[in-house]
Amino acid sequence: MAHVFKPVAITLGDASGIGPEIIAMAFRDTPDKVQGCVVVGDVAVMQRAVDVLAVAKPNAKRIRLLVLSQLSDLPPVLPALTLPVLQVGHPLGVTQLPAWGCVNAVAGRLAADAVVWAAQAALRGEVSALVTAPLHKEALFAAGVPFPGHTEMLQACAAAHVGVSVEDMPVRMMLANRELRTVLVSIHVPLRQAIEAVTVENILQTLRITHAAELAATGRVPHMGVAGLNPHAGEGGLLGREELDIIVPALEQARAEGLHVSGPLAPDTIFMRARVKGDQPGEFDVVIAMYHDQGLIPVKYLGVEQGVNVTLGLPLIRTSPDHGTAFDLAGKGLADPASLLEALAMARRLGADRLI
Amino acid sequence: MAHVFKPVAITLGDASGIGPEIIAMAFRDTPDKVQGCVVVGDVAVMQRAVDVLAVAKPNAKRIRLLVLSQLSDLPPVLPALTLPVLQVGHPLGVTQLPAWGCVNAVAGRLAADAVVWAAQAALRGEVSALVTAPLHKEALFAAGVPFPGHTEMLQACAAAHVGVSVEDMPVRMMLANRELRTVLVSIHVPLRQAIEAVTVENILQTLRITHAAELAATGRVPHMGVAGLNPHAGEGGLLGREELDIIVPALEQARAEGLHVSGPLAPDTIFMRARVKGDQPGEFDVVIAMYHDQGLIPVKYLGVEQGVNVTLGLPLIRTSPDHGTAFDLAGKGLADPASLLEALAMARRLGADRLI
Repeated sequence: MAHVFKPVAITLGDASGIGPEIIAMAFRDTPDKVQGCVVVGDVAVMQRAVDVLAVAKPNAKRIRLLVLSQLSDLPPVLPALTLPVLQVGHPLGVTQLPAWGCVNAVAGRLAADAVVWAAQAALRGEVSALVTAPLHKEALFAAGVPFPGHTEMLQACAAAHVGVSVEDMPVRMMLANRELRTVLVSIHVPLRQAIEAVTVENILQTLRITHAAELAATGRVPHMGVAGLNPHAGEGGLLGREELDIIVPALEQARAEGLHVSGPLAPDTIFMRARVKGDQPGEFDVVIAMYHDQGLIPVKYLGVEQGVNVTLGLPLIRTSPDHGTAFDLAGKGLADPASLLEALAMARRLGADRLI
Repeated sequence: MAHVFKPVAITLGDASGIGPEIIAMAFRDTPDKVQGCVVVGDVAVMQRAVDVLAVAKPNAKRIRLLVLSQLSDLPPVLPALTLPVLQVGHPLGVTQLPAWGCVNAVAGRLAADAVVWAAQAALRGEVSALVTAPLHKEALFAAGVPFPGHTEMLQACAAAHVGVSVEDMPVRMMLANRELRTVLVSIHVPLRQAIEAVTVENILQTLRITHAAELAATGRVPHMGVAGLNPHAGEGGLLGREELDIIVPALEQARAEGLHVSGPLAPDTIFMRARVKGDQPGEFDVVIAMYHDQGLIPVKYLGVEQGVNVTLGLPLIRTSPDHGTAFDLAGKGLADPASLLEALAMARRLGADRLI
C-alpha cells in the first residue's frame, strides 16, 4: 500500500503584512525547500503577493498559483514556479483586498480562519504541521476574534478537539535557531511576575512538555540544561534562594520521573555551553530559561532572521518565523523569507516529514 | 623634551591559579602585544610559571625574567623572550611557593599587595593602566585582606587617594568583547534585589560614569542604548511599569545633562542591534543593562575567552580577563591567555597608550 502523503500547511498570516509575499518568495526562489507544502488562505491575497514580487523584481521568474479545491489535490511533486493555495472561506474579491501596512478587520478574520482551518486539519491528521506566517493582534481584535494570537487560538482548537479545558492544555514557547534551542517557563509578563512564576509546578510542567516534544521529534531522551534565576545560579544562596528552594526540588522530581536534566546552572554561561558550533553539538539539547529575556536575548543575539518560534505541548506541530507583520515593509517585495524557511525546516525536524 | 614612558602594570593574580602562566605565555608567544608592559608581583612565582611552560612544551622557546628594581628600569623596547618583573614586598623563597590549585593565604596576600601597589602607582601617574590577572576571594579572606575582590580594593585605594569616602567613589562594571560593550546597573545581587536597584539615581549614575569613561577613552560623546527591565521594555505599561515610572524619567534627566541616550529598548533585541559585525558598527557604542544576566548573557554567548571586564568610575584605567583562577587548570601550561590579551588591548583603547 502506498504511503499517504500529508502536506505541511503554511497559513498566510495577516494579508496587510509581509506574510503573503515571504511565502510567495519562498515558493519562487527555493522550490526544493517547500515541496509538500500548501498555502492555506485566500487566492486573491496570494495572487497580489505574486504580483508584488513581479513588480519589485521584473526580471525574476514569475510563479503561478495552483488553486486547490481540497488538500488531496496537492501533487506529490510540485512543478517549478507553482504556488499551491487552498481557499479558506469565501474568496475575497479584488476590491476587498486589505490595504498594505494597516490594521484591517478583513485581514484579521482571514488570518484567524486560516489558522483554525489548518489546526483542525492537523488535529484530524490531514496535515502534518502548521507553519504560521505572522498575524497582527489588533487586526484580530478588529475582526472580533476572541484570541490575542496564534498560541491561544491553537490551544482552544486543540482543547476542543481533545475534549478538555484550555487550562488542561498547557503550552510552552520554544525559541530556536541553528545554534540554540530554549524553552521558557513564562513569557509575556513583567519581570516581577516572572519571578513569582518560578514555581516547582511551572518548572516541572515546562520540563515535561519539552521532554515529550523532543522525544517525539528525535526518538531520544533530550538532555535539558536548566538555567538558574539569579546571577551565578544563586551561588549557594548568597545571591538568591530560588535555586535552592524551588529549582533544585523541581529537578529532583524531574529526575525521579526519568527526565534528563542538569542544573540549575549560571544563566550567563549556560547558553554559551549549549551552543552548537558548526558540527560540534552543545552540552545540552535544549535550555530551560526562567523568564522571557533570559532565553530570548541569546537566541536573538545573532539576528532575528534565523529565529524560529515553536509551540510545544499541543497535539500538533506548529512553528512560525520569529518576526512580526512588518507593516512598514509590506507590499514592497523587500521582506526576507529566511525565518519562514527556518520555521519550515524546524517543522520537518519535529516530525512533519514522517509518513503515515 | 622626550616623552615620558608610562608602562601598563599587569598584576600576577593568585599565584596558585592560572594568572602567572597566562602572563608568561603572553610574553613568550605575543611579544609585540605586551610591549610597554611590566608584571607586578613576585620573581619566584613568575619563574615557576616560566618553568611550567617549559615542561608543558619542551620544544617551545624559553623566556627569561628581567628583574626590575624600579619601574623606570623597564626598557622602552623589550627584547624578545623577556618577561620584566617588579618585585612587590619581600621575595618569596622557593619553599614558600603556594601549591597549585588550592586556596592559600600567601597567594592571597601577594595578589592583594600587587594590586594595591599597582593601583597606587597608577594614581600617582606612574603606570598608565592596570591589567589584573584573576585572584581568589577565599585566598584574600585567608590572608586577612578586608576586601572580597579587585573592585573593592581599587575603590578603597582611589577614595583614599582622592580624599573621599568609598561611597563617594561609585563604580560600574563594563563587560566587553569585540562585538559588544555593556555596563551594568547592578551586579552580584539576587534578581529580586536587582529589580529594586533599578532607580532613577542608579540609572543616572551608570549613565554618567559610562559617558565620562567613553568620552575620556575616545574623545567622542558615546551613544548609549538603554535596555528596559521587562519583556518588550514593558510594552507601554502592559508588561511592567518600571520603564515608564523610572527609566524614562532617568533618560530625560540624562538628556538634559547632554548625554546621548536611546531607550528604554526591548532587552531581547538591543544587544543584537548594538553588535559590531566585522567593520560595521552597531547602533550604540555601549548598552546599559538593568541587571547582571541581562548584560552578561550576550557578552558571554560567543565564548568567555573573548570577554574583558573593565571597572569604570575610578581615576585609573583597570581591565581584567573575564575568567577566574581556574584552579583545576593551574600549573599545567594549558590555560589560554586570549582574554588577558584582550584585556590589555582594551586598556590601550581606554587610553593606556597615551603619552604624557
